[in-house]
Amino acid sequence: MALSHLLRVTSQHLRIADVGSASPRRILVSVFPLTKPCQGQQKNKSTATKPRSEKGYQGGRSLWSLIAVAGGGIGVYGLWKMREPVLALSEEEDRWGKFREGLPTYSMAEVSKHSDKNSRIWMTYKEGVYDVTDFVEIHPGGERILMAAGGSMDPFWDIYAVHKNPAVLDMMEEYRIGNLQKEDVVQRSDSADPYSKEPVRHPALIAASKKPFNAETSSELLVETFITSNDLFYVRNHMPVPTFEGPDDKYEVMFEVSSEKTLTMADIKKLPKVSVTAAIQCAGNRRSDIAQVKPVKGLSWGVAAIGNAVWSGASLLELMKNLGVTEEFVRQKGIKHVHFEGNDLGPDGTPYGASIPIEFLMNPNSDIILAYEMNGKPLSRDHGYPLRVIIPGVVGARNVKWISRIALSPEEYQGQWQQRDYKGFNPSVDWNNVDFSQSPAIQELPVTSAICIPKENSKVKLKKGAVPVKGYAWSGGGKKIIRVDVSADNGKTWQTATLDHGGLDQPRGRAWAWTLWNIDLEVPKGEKEVEILVKATDDNYNTQPESSANIWNLRGVLSNAYHRVKVTVA
Amino acid sequence: MALSHLLRVTSQHLRIADVGSASPRRILVSVFPLTKPCQGQQKNKSTATKPRSEKGYQGGRSLWSLIAVAGGGIGVYGLWKMREPVLALSEEEDRWGKFREGLPTYSMAEVSKHSDKNSRIWMTYKEGVYDVTDFVEIHPGGERILMAAGGSMDPFWDIYAVHKNPAVLDMMEEYRIGNLQKEDVVQRSDSADPYSKEPVRHPALIAASKKPFNAETSSELLVETFITSNDLFYVRNHMPVPTFEGPDDKYEVMFEVSSEKTLTMADIKKLPKVSVTAAIQCAGNRRSDIAQVKPVKGLSWGVAAIGNAVWSGASLLELMKNLGVTEEFVRQKGIKHVHFEGNDLGPDGTPYGASIPIEFLMNPNSDIILAYEMNGKPLSRDHGYPLRVIIPGVVGARNVKWISRIALSPEEYQGQWQQRDYKGFNPSVDWNNVDFSQSPAIQELPVTSAICIPKENSKVKLKKGAVPVKGYAWSGGGKKIIRVDVSADNGKTWQTATLDHGGLDQPRGRAWAWTLWNIDLEVPKGEKEVEILVKATDDNYNTQPESSANIWNLRGVLSNAYHRVKVTVA
Repeated sequence: MALSHLLRVTSQHLRIADVGSASPRRILVSVFPLTKPCQGQQKNKSTATKPRSEKGYQGGRSLWSLIAVAGGGIGVYGLWKMREPVLALSEEEDRWGKFREGLPTYSMAEVSKHSDKNSRIWMTYKEGVYDVTDFVEIHPGGERILMAAGGSMDPFWDIYAVHKNPAVLDMMEEYRIGNLQKEDVVQRSDSADPYSKEPVRHPALIAASKKPFNAETSSELLVETFITSNDLFYVRNHMPVPTFEGPDDKYEVMFEVSSEKTLTMADIKKLPKVSVTAAIQCAGNRRSDIAQVKPVKGLSWGVAAIGNAVWSGASLLELMKNLGVTEEFVRQKGIKHVHFEGNDLGPDGTPYGASIPIEFLMNPNSDIILAYEMNGKPLSRDHGYPLRVIIPGVVGARNVKWISRIALSPEEYQGQWQQRDYKGFNPSVDWNNVDFSQSPAIQELPVTSAICIPKENSKVKLKKGAVPVKGYAWSGGGKKIIRVDVSADNGKTWQTATLDHGGLDQPRGRAWAWTLWNIDLEVPKGEKEVEILVKATDDNYNTQPESSANIWNLRGVLSNAYHRVKVTVA
Repeated sequence: MALSHLLRVTSQHLRIADVGSASPRRILVSVFPLTKPCQGQQKNKSTATKPRSEKGYQGGRSLWSLIAVAGGGIGVYGLWKMREPVLALSEEEDRWGKFREGLPTYSMAEVSKHSDKNSRIWMTYKEGVYDVTDFVEIHPGGERILMAAGGSMDPFWDIYAVHKNPAVLDMMEEYRIGNLQKEDVVQRSDSADPYSKEPVRHPALIAASKKPFNAETSSELLVETFITSNDLFYVRNHMPVPTFEGPDDKYEVMFEVSSEKTLTMADIKKLPKVSVTAAIQCAGNRRSDIAQVKPVKGLSWGVAAIGNAVWSGASLLELMKNLGVTEEFVRQKGIKHVHFEGNDLGPDGTPYGASIPIEFLMNPNSDIILAYEMNGKPLSRDHGYPLRVIIPGVVGARNVKWISRIALSPEEYQGQWQQRDYKGFNPSVDWNNVDFSQSPAIQELPVTSAICIPKENSKVKLKKGAVPVKGYAWSGGGKKIIRVDVSADNGKTWQTATLDHGGLDQPRGRAWAWTLWNIDLEVPKGEKEVEILVKATDDNYNTQPESSANIWNLRGVLSNAYHRVKVTVA
């Protein structure tokens, strides 16, 4: 079955699908490792025969379950022993998708005829009909948009709720071509909210988006301690948080090495428990800075989409060695990448997934672990309970949570978040000329730093002519921070900050933790408005770029220019 | 014997030393590894008993031999089987150090009483007497200056000929306090030039200094080929080039691991010959760019103090394993550093030396080799014949040439070039407040790039509205170049260059070779004066700082800001 056909699994189709006769239609999310053709097909084969009732699937004829079934059952079994979320419409009031005077009216039957480029690609949202043919190529989410071709995009937006912001909705209205006839406007009050089982979060987490939940804490709290509290650690979810109701020992992970093998948490815990203190940072941390140059697509993170924790679990390399993975095996099989998938699923049953180069796994100094503890406590649900992978020095997006599957492959993971997101481009690349295949996936992150105290636009009191300033600095790939320079006069002079010892006392090449720093910054006498600048240098003597303009990229990732904070001196 | 006393080995003392009774007075250059107190003493013990005549030492009572002897014989045996250079005055005319009217006249006996801080530190140069007490602390060469305390600095400057430039000489004259009486002005016409045995160099090498020889080729030649020709590869020498007259198999290197062991080249060649394609770059490459911000001390390199070659030799890790070096051994002995010393010696017998962290050696992916071939040919004398160490991804200064000694140690190498040079500082640190102990030695280098064609101020012809531009990009630590952006409008827009495949096809984390790039750069229509900018990004997504101002440092190292070339469009 051609990929283009696979992609034409629309919500319209889903609504009319016969549950009993669902054929394998899952979106291809990864190249199957070694010898087998396709992971989607593979999973089908091994799972389609299992009776769904065994898995305790809930929600009756909810759209979510229909999607899963139309996906060939993978969505169902992909949940493993996680509780599945169920779908519901949020009842928010908005002005988009409403009936518009003067436009033609179409039936859903007519809309459904427009599901590929030849016939133009139409979609509906609430009462609106849209021709998005010209938008498909530049959709940040890639071809995933085609899931809604010839049908309604509403259910997808309930999951990918990040779309529900005025900028996106305004843009969508530019593609408006008509109104949907009243009797076809879907009444979906019987479906449940897939986000109804989200964990309770600490009120100090400031949400950048609620569905999926993405949040950071305030910058002042962030640098209070070398180790970030579990409750205040930034949360980056791409889908609803999956639910697992123990016992932990029964939690299963599929390993695809030379053959498939399911290991339980009990198996994994048989290995020695090792710990690594590592900062994890979102590729989009400090996006709000880079977005000041010109708009970008993505969550508007401040400086706190980073945290530093002690992660404990089993060495992934040791685990792999037990499964027969040696340097020789890797060479013989032509293995180049390690794939990770989570139990967090999109509406079509596609799991979140990512990969890292095999060199990271095979290097014992990479300190990669399958973690079940964070700061001495079991992982919280938001951080991957019961099991996630920790790849120190590497962008958060590869530290896959709620891990369900680990596979070795000659190919990079083909999913959305590896291929169509989390990549950098030069500032002149925009949505009209971007070619995601031309840029490598972000792995190790560049050197960065931020001022956390004082905050932007705050009033500060001088202490002996100086402003107390605090922040963090970090560099990916195990590089140690060797110096943090701070300026109160736009770089005319630089003062060197005092570095926190937690960050300094790390082995060469394995400096995974961040470095906190502080300084009593002398400010020019008499100045009332002071802009504070910071830049860090790591032990490769790499340092930060000066301004965001020359590192701007359309996704607003890798925002590591000098951090600047304006304050008023009282 | 206290270090301060050791350091009071002045040229005055040397001139009056009784050759027969020379006591060990060598300047401490390295902390002896593992258990022994001092490398200098160690070498004395094993070498002082050997009759000097055996070593075929030449030059009679030349100052060079006197220095070596006063150094306890180390200078002599330190030469191993290399031919020793002999000292002579160059006859250059200059206006400094001449008799000055109106100043008091001193005898050398009076000068010699001023050899420490309590009595003030005096020195002579030709006919001048100088009180340099206040300069000692800020001397770029560190305490080595004290070798001349109470005596003449002339012989040292013959070796460290880098001093002989108007800026240094002018500064010296500021410390002038008197004239030396005529009968004490040394007549040294009987000594020979230590640089008389230098190799013949290719005329395409442009010398930044002749004694010691430091040179680069023209930027256009540099990027003609992925592999730099041996003859055009930049040369960075700190002292005269030592001479070795084979046979190669007899060449000896001292290994200090758990005990001392001398290996010959024949032993080293028993190991499999391995090759690595690696760029080597001087820390001062592009110093001429950073010096435009404000003056720095150091050779004025252009963009060509870098080259890319295939180095072949024995794996140093394999060699070390044969000597019993294991992870366990390293841990038990508390080893943290690997020391390298060369056969190139200063006038006091101190060899060039440096060290790297032990982690580099123990990581098999570091690809460190003891190289005896460069691009398939035996090393040339300028590049370390017969043996040097190649540490890919690491600053040239650690790639020690004419290797004589390799030692493991809990301490970093204590020599000049590890402790008092090749370090970075923030732009506000100057010679008045610099504390070298506060900055780590440069090891892996940051991402950089340069435009080699066209050259600064050249006239270029447009080809279809575009300027053909060529250059190199490289990043230390095995990081691969993933993108090179070029701008003709000061960063308003960026065009992405085409990358050379030699650089792209390198394994992850082991991208030691440089990446050549080229682009037909579209320039703004009608512009006659165009400034071309380049910046590279490596696979950590680290990129270059925009301008030299914020990375300026007093030694002018690590000059990796955007490279800029102004051209006139014809």
